[in-house]
Amino acid sequence: MQNRKLRMGMIGGGVGSFIGGVHRVAANLDGQIELVCGAFSRDPEKSARTGKELFLDEGRVYGSYKEMIKAEKQLPKGDRMDFVSIVTPNHVHADPALLALDNGFPVIIDKPLCFDMQEAKALQAKVKETRLPFALTHTYTGYPMVKQARKMVEDGELGPIKKITVEYPQGWLSQKLEADDNKQASWRTDPTKSGKAGAYGDIGTHAANMAEYVSGLKINKVLSQLSKIVEGRLLDDDASALLEFEGGVPGVLACSQVSAGEENNIKIRVYGEKGGLEWQQEDNNTLKVKWQGKPDQIYRTGVDNTGYLSETALANSRVPAGHPEGYLEAFANIYRNFGMHLRAHDAGENHDMEIYDYPDVDEGVHGMSLVDAVVESTERGNIWVEVKNN
Amino acid sequence: MQNRKLRMGMIGGGVGSFIGGVHRVAANLDGQIELVCGAFSRDPEKSARTGKELFLDEGRVYGSYKEMIKAEKQLPKGDRMDFVSIVTPNHVHADPALLALDNGFPVIIDKPLCFDMQEAKALQAKVKETRLPFALTHTYTGYPMVKQARKMVEDGELGPIKKITVEYPQGWLSQKLEADDNKQASWRTDPTKSGKAGAYGDIGTHAANMAEYVSGLKINKVLSQLSKIVEGRLLDDDASALLEFEGGVPGVLACSQVSAGEENNIKIRVYGEKGGLEWQQEDNNTLKVKWQGKPDQIYRTGVDNTGYLSETALANSRVPAGHPEGYLEAFANIYRNFGMHLRAHDAGENHDMEIYDYPDVDEGVHGMSLVDAVVESTERGNIWVEVKNN
Amino acid sequence: MQNRKLRMGMIGGGVGSFIGGVHRVAANLDGQIELVCGAFSRDPEKSARTGKELFLDEGRVYGSYKEMIKAEKQLPKGDRMDFVSIVTPNHVHADPALLALDNGFPVIIDKPLCFDMQEAKALQAKVKETRLPFALTHTYTGYPMVKQARKMVEDGELGPIKKITVEYPQGWLSQKLEADDNKQASWRTDPTKSGKAGAYGDIGTHAANMAEYVSGLKINKVLSQLSKIVEGRLLDDDASALLEFEGGVPGVLACSQVSAGEENNIKIRVYGEKGGLEWQQEDNNTLKVKWQGKPDQIYRTGVDNTGYLSETALANSRVPAGHPEGYLEAFANIYRNFGMHLRAHDAGENHDMEIYDYPDVDEGVHGMSLVDAVVESTERGNIWVEVKNN
Amino acid sequence: MQNRKLRMGMIGGGVGSFIGGVHRVAANLDGQIELVCGAFSRDPEKSARTGKELFLDEGRVYGSYKEMIKAEKQLPKGDRMDFVSIVTPNHVHADPALLALDNGFPVIIDKPLCFDMQEAKALQAKVKETRLPFALTHTYTGYPMVKQARKMVEDGELGPIKKITVEYPQGWLSQKLEADDNKQASWRTDPTKSGKAGAYGDIGTHAANMAEYVSGLKINKVLSQLSKIVEGRLLDDDASALLEFEGGVPGVLACSQVSAGEENNIKIRVYGEKGGLEWQQEDNNTLKVKWQGKPDQIYRTGVDNTGYLSETALANSRVPAGHPEGYLEAFANIYRNFGMHLRAHDAGENHDMEIYDYPDVDEGVHGMSLVDAVVESTERGNIWVEVKNN
Repeated sequence: MQNRKLRMGMIGGGVGSFIGGVHRVAANLDGQIELVCGAFSRDPEKSARTGKELFLDEGRVYGSYKEMIKAEKQLPKGDRMDFVSIVTPNHVHADPALLALDNGFPVIIDKPLCFDMQEAKALQAKVKETRLPFALTHTYTGYPMVKQARKMVEDGELGPIKKITVEYPQGWLSQKLEADDNKQASWRTDPTKSGKAGAYGDIGTHAANMAEYVSGLKINKVLSQLSKIVEGRLLDDDASALLEFEGGVPGVLACSQVSAGEENNIKIRVYGEKGGLEWQQEDNNTLKVKWQGKPDQIYRTGVDNTGYLSETALANSRVPAGHPEGYLEAFANIYRNFGMHLRAHDAGENHDMEIYDYPDVDEGVHGMSLVDAVVESTERGNIWVEVKNN
Repeated sequence: MQNRKLRMGMIGGGVGSFIGGVHRVAANLDGQIELVCGAFSRDPEKSARTGKELFLDEGRVYGSYKEMIKAEKQLPKGDRMDFVSIVTPNHVHADPALLALDNGFPVIIDKPLCFDMQEAKALQAKVKETRLPFALTHTYTGYPMVKQARKMVEDGELGPIKKITVEYPQGWLSQKLEADDNKQASWRTDPTKSGKAGAYGDIGTHAANMAEYVSGLKINKVLSQLSKIVEGRLLDDDASALLEFEGGVPGVLACSQVSAGEENNIKIRVYGEKGGLEWQQEDNNTLKVKWQGKPDQIYRTGVDNTGYLSETALANSRVPAGHPEGYLEAFANIYRNFGMHLRAHDAGENHDMEIYDYPDVDEGVHGMSLVDAVVESTERGNIWVEVKNN
Repeated sequence: MQNRKLRMGMIGGGVGSFIGGVHRVAANLDGQIELVCGAFSRDPEKSARTGKELFLDEGRVYGSYKEMIKAEKQLPKGDRMDFVSIVTPNHVHADPALLALDNGFPVIIDKPLCFDMQEAKALQAKVKETRLPFALTHTYTGYPMVKQARKMVEDGELGPIKKITVEYPQGWLSQKLEADDNKQASWRTDPTKSGKAGAYGDIGTHAANMAEYVSGLKINKVLSQLSKIVEGRLLDDDASALLEFEGGVPGVLACSQVSAGEENNIKIRVYGEKGGLEWQQEDNNTLKVKWQGKPDQIYRTGVDNTGYLSETALANSRVPAGHPEGYLEAFANIYRNFGMHLRAHDAGENHDMEIYDYPDVDEGVHGMSLVDAVVESTERGNIWVEVKNN
Repeated sequence: MQNRKLRMGMIGGGVGSFIGGVHRVAANLDGQIELVCGAFSRDPEKSARTGKELFLDEGRVYGSYKEMIKAEKQLPKGDRMDFVSIVTPNHVHADPALLALDNGFPVIIDKPLCFDMQEAKALQAKVKETRLPFALTHTYTGYPMVKQARKMVEDGELGPIKKITVEYPQGWLSQKLEADDNKQASWRTDPTKSGKAGAYGDIGTHAANMAEYVSGLKINKVLSQLSKIVEGRLLDDDASALLEFEGGVPGVLACSQVSAGEENNIKIRVYGEKGGLEWQQEDNNTLKVKWQGKPDQIYRTGVDNTGYLSETALANSRVPAGHPEGYLEAFANIYRNFGMHLRAHDAGENHDMEIYDYPDVDEGVHGMSLVDAVVESTERGNIWVEVKNN
């Protein structure tokens, strides 16, 4: 494994999928991973067509994930896939992941972790049992400047944390697209596929994860208001929540899929006693550091900013400052770091999760417990609910 | 009154005051108003010193507002002040305003309207009784692009409104300045001077007013979380609230005086079915209009943008696009429009409150009822509370 | 003079004028100056109408500047105007200014100084002879962050200066407005009124002045390309120039009135060995300080930024950070500082030109010599031409 | 070739190279190309080490490009590399490219095309003779919004073009890094490796190419000022030029490597009679479209912006709007489009150079002729020089 690319098998991501293609680019980007097999769709013809477009060996394009895991397992180590990437809708996360782990394959999986808490716990237990690497693609924490922000908070540069604000506004569901058979909209607004939360499950989980990642503080309690703005929609398409982080730090989370005209500008602000941090995806290579009584500072992504960036920010950048990096690079950081972990695991070595970190199954389980708490708060009339898994 | 500048008397605003000087610039700016007298401080020496700096006739610098109102009343009309500007701390708003109105003097007053709801109701009744012009300086709605935003919402350009977000982050109270005898901090954090709300009263009221002004929708219900972040502080220095506007439109309000590093970047976002509006003070001459599926548009302040700006935006601008206007000009719009109303009132004519509008006593009373509801919600454990005065 | 407002007389600025109104706001803003008389137009009826709108005493609204200067001179000191503000088109600058000076009236005058070099020299001589205060309204150097930039360069914070770039793009003359009898366009594009340069004279002079002000370096040589882009236009409407500053520092100046869609975003960048400065009018309250190998810094206007702003930046600001100041405040700084000089002059005291500075007649003469050099360079085939007056 | 990844051989790009790694990411990203062999360094040990890191078959890591081309040629088609990527310093461009073409291998090459005009002409002739696909990596025109800009100009949306401004400021050579044995700095400032131009050759060529690409107009004449700012430097590190485009359209180009604090913010502005376009790398997913008399518009990268983006902008994007794309994706567009051309060429089909375009050898030759003209202009005293190759 040390002298060759890592071999990836993919579940889901057939022609027409958005996120499957993104995962493949992220895996390809650094030349450390190659796709060798896939079960891209429950429709074998579609799976085959996808495999062909991706130049895969026909014999390794499978009609189902069960078939794939079984067949690959039988190949000699070194030939067979080294890990599985799961990019299906939420309700088809847990089963293939469990099967993969049971058969010795590490897993990288799209977020949220799975459909509900029961599945989440099962996955967590399985990961613990198998001790296999397991990654969850909370992409946004893969950005170098987000890692820089986390490090600065951790190092106490802002002083004790006092306030956290996170938001993720989108507008693409401001019309009832699911009525027009829009594939992306359909499963995301369908509680039998997406789970019990809509906008919160899809993007609120990213926002909560971002807030916890940067601040280093877990959310202890939530008071939420989930709204169904578009008439006839089955799940929330707008969510606001008051948060209480560890240590009693107050926070606000707002996400929406009906903020017409908004793209994907997830934004985090963390304030300490001495200053604050601001990062937003729209300007992802910039971290604004605000000081009370001193000029604000602009931190910038770039492998040449060795004079002031943290080791982890530098290690997750690829080009000199001013050449913008973006979403695919942040995504690729998760794959690259997960791949490094795989190699270390294979060699019986430790992987440095401080510098080459990625979200793991515990973050996934915690995310699911946040979904539960957020939904419960609204159902019980917008009251404070404790987050169980902390 | 038609052939001369309007004559202004000021209560408060002695040497060392911040907002008094701002009011004077705002009054001066358009050459329509002149300061003729004042009771600038309870300390007669300080009042005299202020008057001297402002080149006032010694005889018209008074030791108290009572003295001033009495003396000016005795001057012949045309000589005496035409109206009173009140720029004292909140707990010294109602009494001088009532006295002025009782003596026939129109009033322009700093926000919030007064100390508590009882005073507010008394003021409202007095204004109704005397039918005198009365203005409240909710400055931020004086910006041309805020007026443009309101007009576009009113005209239905965004479609039905679906979501409103407003925020006002400051950082200046992230340390306990009131312990160091900072004048601005001291009265604002003192419940006997500021009223029952701290950050919410000082800047949350601006945010709520902005949200209602732009959207044209009143807030019906609030669920708030007022926090005292700095240890030992007597009033909230951070406030978050879930809002329900008329028609059930959800909203989020967040304000803070402990967001270290933040200045005064009040920001409003209003989303309709078709698109959204975004305005922030930091870039006050720009209104970003976001469309789902079409390029966003950038509306800009400027008397030459006659091709697309509304009449009210144009009427509240002073220079061609690209020459930045700012806070003092927004403030001056309130004075200018109030002054126009005074002249119209004097002449027995109507004043166009659509184009030359300014906040009035009813907005002030409504703002006080919001303070009550916000405080009650937190006191009762962060529950939904109805806003009484709508 | 110490215990009253300064009295201003205005020449030009009748109804329909743009810049006249701006001068009046700038003079009014700080409550230190009052307009007492004017000769607003060569058309006595229009002059009278303007005076009436401005609430002037009928007897002090004059039909010509000659009449005004003569009549005011005869009033007792203390009653008569203290200085003259000249806001006429370029070709009517020198005569009234000379007459005013000759009669003992200090002058504040719109830019460029006058019509040609001969007039400029005469004015300079007259100012030297009379030793009266004389201000030129190169507004853009009145911004606090421009003053901050100048101070930082002067203090050597950037190291030795290596490169200077300045630009001023406008779009308003991208159509032939002068053909439609547009007043602003007509005189600006008419060589008999504007002088020998069009865009360069109108806005390039601002750009050059800005570059010299911030860098503290005079332009020694220019190589220009003046273009007449719109067919049939008599003067340049677009100008680019290579510059050589003192010490051989290279620079680029670009200005245009045919950059369709542009407003008034004058922008200056100065680079030293260690870092660079960037300021633009569109975001006038921000000074971006860029460092090689360190995070950039954001300096911000604000009377409360006492921890890091220079004395001159603070002295030319009016409100706390985050409350935007703009063009009118920058303009008012010139009037305020000129007024302070007048009072000091009257009292026989020194005026602090370091902190309360404003552009004077020498800058005006130098600006005219730059016009000469720029025009000569293009006429002689885009060659290097030395600037005579340095 | 249709049913497999394209096979790439690389010349240059050994351990420590910056641009070699970028080329590899760009090639990897879309999963259409795989690196199969390389001659990464003149030092065989270093070449071998690089090959190992890249998981290449030892037998296909060569000690020189000559060896590689010879050996690969002897492999059966389908096994051997399909094309060569050349990422060496400028003086080692032409020879390997000529040899590759002579042996039937298409070439993709870093910019500038080569060392001097003679080499450029030879390459152009060879491409014409062999009729093989040939790409030059002028990366910045690979950005979707740059392609959108070009299309809008081409479609006449701005009206006839009147003015073009392009700039590329960097600061990394503001100190004499070449004295400290900095590898990147050393060859770039060495006329025997870089060619006759320094900053102009390195980044000015990008700026000129950008201006011509977006405007669709060739530069006919230049008047340049090349400066050596850092003492002792052998080539220009700062360059400014007046430009005359086809049809007499004036332009300004400014590039610098001594603008301390600047990163890589290449920026283009093109103005037509009706409006202007502005794009800069720092905000690469945004194209600002400015209109005279109408609100500006913000065009945004995103595969979902099908409502208004051109076919070519959409075809060169990968993710929905708001997920930032960057430099590596722009670079990957060149590889992807070049790869598509290779497949089409192999299949005897046409490649759509309108939508899937990339810079070719003619652009490279033209770029070299611009270098000649720019250098000649300065050497002859900053006079207008015609660009020979148009």
